[in-house]
Amino acid sequence: MKRPTMKDVARAAGVSPMTVSRVVSGEAGVAPETAARVGQAVRKLGYQRNDNARSLRQKNLGTSTIGLVVDDLANPFYALMARSVEDEAHRRGHVVLVGSTNDEPQREREVIAAFTARQVDGLIIVPTIGGHGFLKRPMAGGTQVVCVDRPARGLAVDTVTVDNRAAAGRAVTHLLGHGHTRIAYLGDRFDIWTQAERYAGYLDALAAHGIPEDPALVRHELRSHPQARDALAVLRTLPDPPTALFTSNDLITLGVLDGLDHPAPLALVGFDDLPLGERLTPPLTVVSQDPVALGGTAANLLFSRIAGDRSAPRSVVLLTRFVVRGSGAMRTAGG
Amino acid sequence: MKRPTMKDVARAAGVSPMTVSRVVSGEAGVAPETAARVGQAVRKLGYQRNDNARSLRQKNLGTSTIGLVVDDLANPFYALMARSVEDEAHRRGHVVLVGSTNDEPQREREVIAAFTARQVDGLIIVPTIGGHGFLKRPMAGGTQVVCVDRPARGLAVDTVTVDNRAAAGRAVTHLLGHGHTRIAYLGDRFDIWTQAERYAGYLDALAAHGIPEDPALVRHELRSHPQARDALAVLRTLPDPPTALFTSNDLITLGVLDGLDHPAPLALVGFDDLPLGERLTPPLTVVSQDPVALGGTAANLLFSRIAGDRSAPRSVVLLTRFVVRGSGAMRTAGG
Repeated sequence: MKRPTMKDVARAAGVSPMTVSRVVSGEAGVAPETAARVGQAVRKLGYQRNDNARSLRQKNLGTSTIGLVVDDLANPFYALMARSVEDEAHRRGHVVLVGSTNDEPQREREVIAAFTARQVDGLIIVPTIGGHGFLKRPMAGGTQVVCVDRPARGLAVDTVTVDNRAAAGRAVTHLLGHGHTRIAYLGDRFDIWTQAERYAGYLDALAAHGIPEDPALVRHELRSHPQARDALAVLRTLPDPPTALFTSNDLITLGVLDGLDHPAPLALVGFDDLPLGERLTPPLTVVSQDPVALGGTAANLLFSRIAGDRSAPRSVVLLTRFVVRGSGAMRTAGG
Repeated sequence: MKRPTMKDVARAAGVSPMTVSRVVSGEAGVAPETAARVGQAVRKLGYQRNDNARSLRQKNLGTSTIGLVVDDLANPFYALMARSVEDEAHRRGHVVLVGSTNDEPQREREVIAAFTARQVDGLIIVPTIGGHGFLKRPMAGGTQVVCVDRPARGLAVDTVTVDNRAAAGRAVTHLLGHGHTRIAYLGDRFDIWTQAERYAGYLDALAAHGIPEDPALVRHELRSHPQARDALAVLRTLPDPPTALFTSNDLITLGVLDGLDHPAPLALVGFDDLPLGERLTPPLTVVSQDPVALGGTAANLLFSRIAGDRSAPRSVVLLTRFVVRGSGAMRTAGG
């Protein structure tokens, strides 16, 4: 059977070939209903973006691109992930477009629109909390998408995450095992998937020990080092303050370290390892993720999709390591 | 006067317009002599890459790109710099292509070739030690280049660096001021410009105090945490071992911290601050660079060049801060 052409899709959808071209390239200026009709025709006919055009482009440009969209490239966790993606892409002769979203859906849309307009072969994204319907059009045109760190709501694509909930549960259980019952949770925005999972793990561990949640000990929405430091200061003023802390990412851990020892030391387990964490007094006990493995796994999935793998979307969960060094074993004041 | 066209350049150089197009786009496959002839014609006629073609491309693609080429994106210093460049580019509607070189000239050429083939409007590069003659062709075609962190040998372009030599001298003078005369230098590859500058600063400070250099105390070529750790172990076995260390980048500082306290503590001043450096025992005294300012300054220079600034190349030197926290004030064994 002859491969369907752009003209075939145009005929089936009742639009011009130029409109089809616009839709599959992810360009703006096509009415949503029209785009949907084109998308249906693309799927029905099994159309793939013109390989001649693509190889011509590759010949002209010497190389292809993939896009990488992270929360914040300045965060060492995402920087390590980015380097890992870049190494995989370089090995395969691709170059990487990179962008940060700050977890802002608007910036995410802008960055991804810029990337798809440049006809990236694929996208690796750390999705924001926003909807991702806008990705359906470039995906219908053949752009491959893989999510890493978090799934994207309503998007059935390959996704690589870690065992956030179980790992957080283990961390809090470690604190409970050292006699703590007043354990504070300090987290980032609750609507970020990883944060919701880690908070659920915190609640799991408390529930397994028959300890009811005390909302006074739970702080969400900590977006920066100073906000985390200030949240700890407030927790310290409670009539029945915490004796231990679970911090749900590296920035928050850095922030609470500022107020940890005064007036009295508190036990601490953090999610994410920190450089020099093992050299603190006491050394830091953490849940350690491997951003290089996350990035490498996501890149491998993406390149197998680009190579033509059309099997059902996969969800890959990588295991974290729980690194016990001492900071979670501080005794309670009365213990 | 009419603006010169690609055809005018082709006529002046005695080649086809297609060859001119190849040269100004930085594509491979043009003989060096031919490319040089085209470059001369471009400069003589004051030809600029076809604005119609460019605006057509911008209309098609919705956005322009700049390329960022760093040593290692996984190094927090370069990650912060990259985020800063990305923010400036995003603000101006550009997207960023990013690549790491590992300080390998071959990989640098590959990455930059991939970027120029994709018609980036400009490049911000942390140049490797390799030659950069290969950049002259895309530059003749209108691609703007700015160097950051280090100058590129033989390339007269805007360059943003810090006061490496003076800052290293001040750091070593601090150790001398605390009575140390056996001060070891632990550095990365000597052929990297920043490293040579910092080593020169080390020698300046010793000379100003009338202390001759002892080659046994100088270790170059430390490329990793383990290599730095092992180099310190060797220094410790000297008949007259060092009582203080100057480490010339963050990775080397991390490496020597492993062996710093045993069998006896040594004084230490490092180039580059580290997260949590202020929480070590003793807290780390460092030369602190501002990678956000480096990246932001480089991006501003690049975008002013893209906007048409053709003034003479600038060399911008940003000042570092010397952050005294304690680790440089350890007394000598006999002191």
